[in-house]
Amino acid sequence: MLIQSYHSADPILLAVDCVIFGFDQNKLKLLIFKREVDPLAGQWSLIGSFIKPDEGADEAALRVLSEITGITGTYMEQLHTFGAVNRDKGGRVISIAYWNLIKIQPEIESFKVKNHISKWVDINKVPDLILDHNDMTKMAIARLREKAKYKPIGFELIPEEFTLPQLLNVYQAIFQREIDDRNFRKKMLKSGLLTQTNKKDKRTSKKGSYLYRFNNQRYITLLQEGYNFEI
Amino acid sequence: MLIQSYHSADPILLAVDCVIFGFDQNKLKLLIFKREVDPLAGQWSLIGSFIKPDEGADEAALRVLSEITGITGTYMEQLHTFGAVNRDKGGRVISIAYWNLIKIQPEIESFKVKNHISKWVDINKVPDLILDHNDMTKMAIARLREKAKYKPIGFELIPEEFTLPQLLNVYQAIFQREIDDRNFRKKMLKSGLLTQTNKKDKRTSKKGSYLYRFNNQRYITLLQEGYNFEI
Repeated sequence: MLIQSYHSADPILLAVDCVIFGFDQNKLKLLIFKREVDPLAGQWSLIGSFIKPDEGADEAALRVLSEITGITGTYMEQLHTFGAVNRDKGGRVISIAYWNLIKIQPEIESFKVKNHISKWVDINKVPDLILDHNDMTKMAIARLREKAKYKPIGFELIPEEFTLPQLLNVYQAIFQREIDDRNFRKKMLKSGLLTQTNKKDKRTSKKGSYLYRFNNQRYITLLQEGYNFEI
Repeated sequence: MLIQSYHSADPILLAVDCVIFGFDQNKLKLLIFKREVDPLAGQWSLIGSFIKPDEGADEAALRVLSEITGITGTYMEQLHTFGAVNRDKGGRVISIAYWNLIKIQPEIESFKVKNHISKWVDINKVPDLILDHNDMTKMAIARLREKAKYKPIGFELIPEEFTLPQLLNVYQAIFQREIDDRNFRKKMLKSGLLTQTNKKDKRTSKKGSYLYRFNNQRYITLLQEGYNFEI
C-alpha cells in the first residue's frame, strides 16, 4: 500500500454473494432468490449481503448462509471477487463471491429458507439472474467440477449416511456424464474412505443397499501418505 | 443482495496487492517494496493501492503493475480476497490479492521499479512482510505451483526466446526440485509447443544451445484437441 494514504482513499460498498449448490432427485441444483430491494426488485438473484464494518468477508458469507438457511458448518469456499466498475446499477459495489455445498435433507426438515422467496433450480436451467450473477454461477460450477476431480467434496452434497448408488449419482450430476458403476464402486470401496454401517436403505430394492459414511480420519491419513483422490 | 438497502450499508476501503514473481539466476524471486506510508512505514511489503471509484479491481492491479514497473501485458491472475476485520491497523481495508509473472530482462532494461525502494528476494528467503502479506505470498506460491503443473505458464517468466536448459531451470525453480533433463527435453520437443529459431545462445557452451519460442497458436489448437500440458 504505497501510493495513497488511508485518508485520501475513497471507500466502496463491499458485498458477498453465495452460489449455493444442493443435490436433489439426482440433479445438481442452485438455490436462487427473488430480490427484494431496488433496483431490479422481483428478479431472480443469488443471495448476498453487504459486509458489515465489524465482520470479516468470510464471516459475512457464513452469516448470510446461516440467516437464510438456518444451516451452519456447510462447505464453503471463496470463488472470486467481481470488481468491474459498472457491475451494479445500485452503486459502486464490489462483490466477493463464495460457493457452498449443502445437504438437502427434506425428511428431517433441517433446511428452510427463511422469509425469502426462493427455489432450487437445475443447474442446466438457471434463469436470467441479476447483474453478473450468471457469471458467478458459471464460474462456481466450473470450480466445483475441477475440485470434485481430486477432492472428495461429493460427500458434502449427500446425507451423512448414504448408499453407493447415491454417491455415484452425485458424481454423475456434478460431471454431467455417466460414470461406470462397477469401476466407481470398486475404487470407492478400495480407497477405505467409506465406512460401512449395519443399516440398509430398502427404498429402491427388496435386498436393499448398505448405508456408508465418509471416513474423514482415514482421508486425512491417506493425504499424509500422498494419496490422490481421483474420480 | 436481499438483506440491506444500498443506503444503509457502510462503505469499506478496498485495495489491491500484487504478488510479483520473476525468475533470475535460476531462482524464483519475489518483488518486495519498502512501505512509504504509516502505519508500518519503512517495513517490507508487497506493492498495492487503494481501488479508485472509477476503476475496476483488475484495472487497479494492472495500474499498480504498470505504474511501478513500466511493464504492461504481464501474466496476472486474481488470487484471493483477504477480508479479516483487523488485518490492517491503518483502518478497515479489504484487499484483493493478485499474482503476476514478470520477465526480468536486465539486458534490455525494459524493467525498472519507479520511485520506490524495492528488491527481488529468493522465495525461500522472504523476510517478514507487513500485515498478511506473507500469507498472500505463501498462497500465491502454492497457486503458481499448482497452475504450472498443467498450464504452460513457465514461459511467462523467461524471455520470448529461450534455450531448453533455461526452460528446465524455470520449472526446477518453480517446483523446487530436480527434473529429469532428458525426459523434460523429449516431452517439450514432442509437444510441438516450441518453435525452434535459427539462433543459438553461445554463453554457456562453444557448441551453443538453440533458442526456441513458445508457440501459443499450437497450444490453443492442442487444447481444443483435449491435450493436457503436464510437467
